[in-house]
Amino acid sequence: MTNIAILGFGTVGSGVYEVLTRNGANFCPDINIKHILDLRTFPDHPLADRVTADFDKILNDKKVSVVVETMGGTGAAYKFSLAALQAGKHVVTSNKACVDKYGEELERVAAENGVCYLYEASVGGGIPVIAPLKECFAGDKILRIAGILNGTTNYILTHMQTEGKALQDMVKVAQELGYAEADPHADLAGLDSARKISILAGIAHGRYISYESIPYVEGIEEVTLQDIRLAAEMGCVIRLIAKAVLVGEKLSISVAPHVVAATSMLNSVCEAFNAISVTGDCVGEVMFYGAGAGSLPTAAAVVGDIARVVTGSAKPAMPRKACEEGFIIAENDEEKFITLKNGKKYRYFE
Amino acid sequence: MTNIAILGFGTVGSGVYEVLTRNGANFCPDINIKHILDLRTFPDHPLADRVTADFDKILNDKKVSVVVETMGGTGAAYKFSLAALQAGKHVVTSNKACVDKYGEELERVAAENGVCYLYEASVGGGIPVIAPLKECFAGDKILRIAGILNGTTNYILTHMQTEGKALQDMVKVAQELGYAEADPHADLAGLDSARKISILAGIAHGRYISYESIPYVEGIEEVTLQDIRLAAEMGCVIRLIAKAVLVGEKLSISVAPHVVAATSMLNSVCEAFNAISVTGDCVGEVMFYGAGAGSLPTAAAVVGDIARVVTGSAKPAMPRKACEEGFIIAENDEEKFITLKNGKKYRYFE
Repeated sequence: MTNIAILGFGTVGSGVYEVLTRNGANFCPDINIKHILDLRTFPDHPLADRVTADFDKILNDKKVSVVVETMGGTGAAYKFSLAALQAGKHVVTSNKACVDKYGEELERVAAENGVCYLYEASVGGGIPVIAPLKECFAGDKILRIAGILNGTTNYILTHMQTEGKALQDMVKVAQELGYAEADPHADLAGLDSARKISILAGIAHGRYISYESIPYVEGIEEVTLQDIRLAAEMGCVIRLIAKAVLVGEKLSISVAPHVVAATSMLNSVCEAFNAISVTGDCVGEVMFYGAGAGSLPTAAAVVGDIARVVTGSAKPAMPRKACEEGFIIAENDEEKFITLKNGKKYRYFE
Repeated sequence: MTNIAILGFGTVGSGVYEVLTRNGANFCPDINIKHILDLRTFPDHPLADRVTADFDKILNDKKVSVVVETMGGTGAAYKFSLAALQAGKHVVTSNKACVDKYGEELERVAAENGVCYLYEASVGGGIPVIAPLKECFAGDKILRIAGILNGTTNYILTHMQTEGKALQDMVKVAQELGYAEADPHADLAGLDSARKISILAGIAHGRYISYESIPYVEGIEEVTLQDIRLAAEMGCVIRLIAKAVLVGEKLSISVAPHVVAATSMLNSVCEAFNAISVTGDCVGEVMFYGAGAGSLPTAAAVVGDIARVVTGSAKPAMPRKACEEGFIIAENDEEKFITLKNGKKYRYFE
């Protein structure tokens, strides 16, 4: 029997329960959710008796081999993940903030204890991109990663275009529909995208890169309906794109709204969907597309990671370098720009 | 040191040499191509002295732990793969015909000998789809796989539309450019797509499925320029789509030209590119896109598999069932159709 514990029974955590109940037997006939850590109680839930507010109960339970961290934040989430890894338990998470801030330490401690710290769900929701990037692109030097990594802003940009609504109006709609949070700043300002591109770029280039080291982060706050209409006249759309581009031996990382050419596959990415384009020197451009958020898609990615540790196909992470000073640069001489008819200049994505 | 042997030094085999030379040190500092099996000699090649026509030399070399089979066909390729696996060597291949015909036996023998038989490059060229399907979708019941899996026909259909040329004229152009073979039948008739969807469907549904068991395989021979133009008037394109759709407890598999809706991501797949859409009951629709053929992209996928065995992240395959009679059905009551203005009826893909 494989016993797991879920830390945080919110949107993603309860999704993990749902996905495991539906399909867990596919990869592990006797997988068992032994504990659920939450300060709340869930009296009507089938697993009500497994809910505890005491993390030590989980930590000291030698039968628990996998801890699922779906709490969010970088406080208790970090502390509990670290303790679980030190106790020789695998940790699987969807928490991009914790991966961004503490990934270096947590992966190192995991490797020291012969276990895994996995975070497929932290970028691109249900889209498998981290495992393929770690394992399938070994034959490539990654020249570029470019992604629509934030579903909220993509939903807003899509519907500004289709409904002719201004940014602030669409933000309100997105909040009402649950796509945007009460404080939408991290999404709108590009910070969420910055965290995700820093995780992907770090994996691709064998370093730990914090989003705080990204020199250029611009959100969608200044994108107007007129801009979107003028872009549309050229068959283009405006999308918030996070990019990590290899320039010689350095890496240019940026987040900014781009005018996306009609010929690019990213042009077709609408609604709250995400897409990640990875270009290697051998494989060329490969793109991954799917639901970037949501309870079940994100939980499906978490469960994919659980399956990878249970079946033994995931290995402790290969060591990465610290990110040396000067490796990340703002300038990219090959950046292309386009000026709209109203005189506004945008980055151009082909 | 990890010693590998390459069987067949044609387009893909020589690509594997190229990719390993460029980037092999990324995952294995001391990877070494010890033998190259080919009936030809390559006197000007840097590895000319490693070329042999004697497979037994490779089989009996205990230092060779990975055999790369890029010969093609189902004769010697099968015989050598089987012998290598029995000798406890991992086998990595791009040979879809061999995987389709002998995959069941080869995976079983591999598992019995504690090694891997890997074939990421057999479907979708450089696109990582087999490893993600095996490992990242564990939390999902796969409801549908739908793919543009043949670059040759996609190139032909794309250019019939953009250049206004008839099918037979575009076939000639594709042959001149090296996209189509001298005998293009397997591509045009949908047999190549059938082999690939049978491999993907087998993985997704835990069975071995031969392309010969697919009840409906229609190629693009009857697609006319007029059909393409009438579809284009509706914002649609015509694409050869291979599908495996779960209908209750059975699987409907087919290959046929479809009219693809403007809103589908597959609508944007042009030229010789491939795309595979995978829909799970939890994750929703995920799409993988990239170069479906070519020396370096295909070789990059082969090298990805080599890296997975060298680093230990690939495991011998989980056992699958034989495909029980009646599991694969032709009928799918939910299939949608569309009739063009000229009266021709096509399957419709949304």
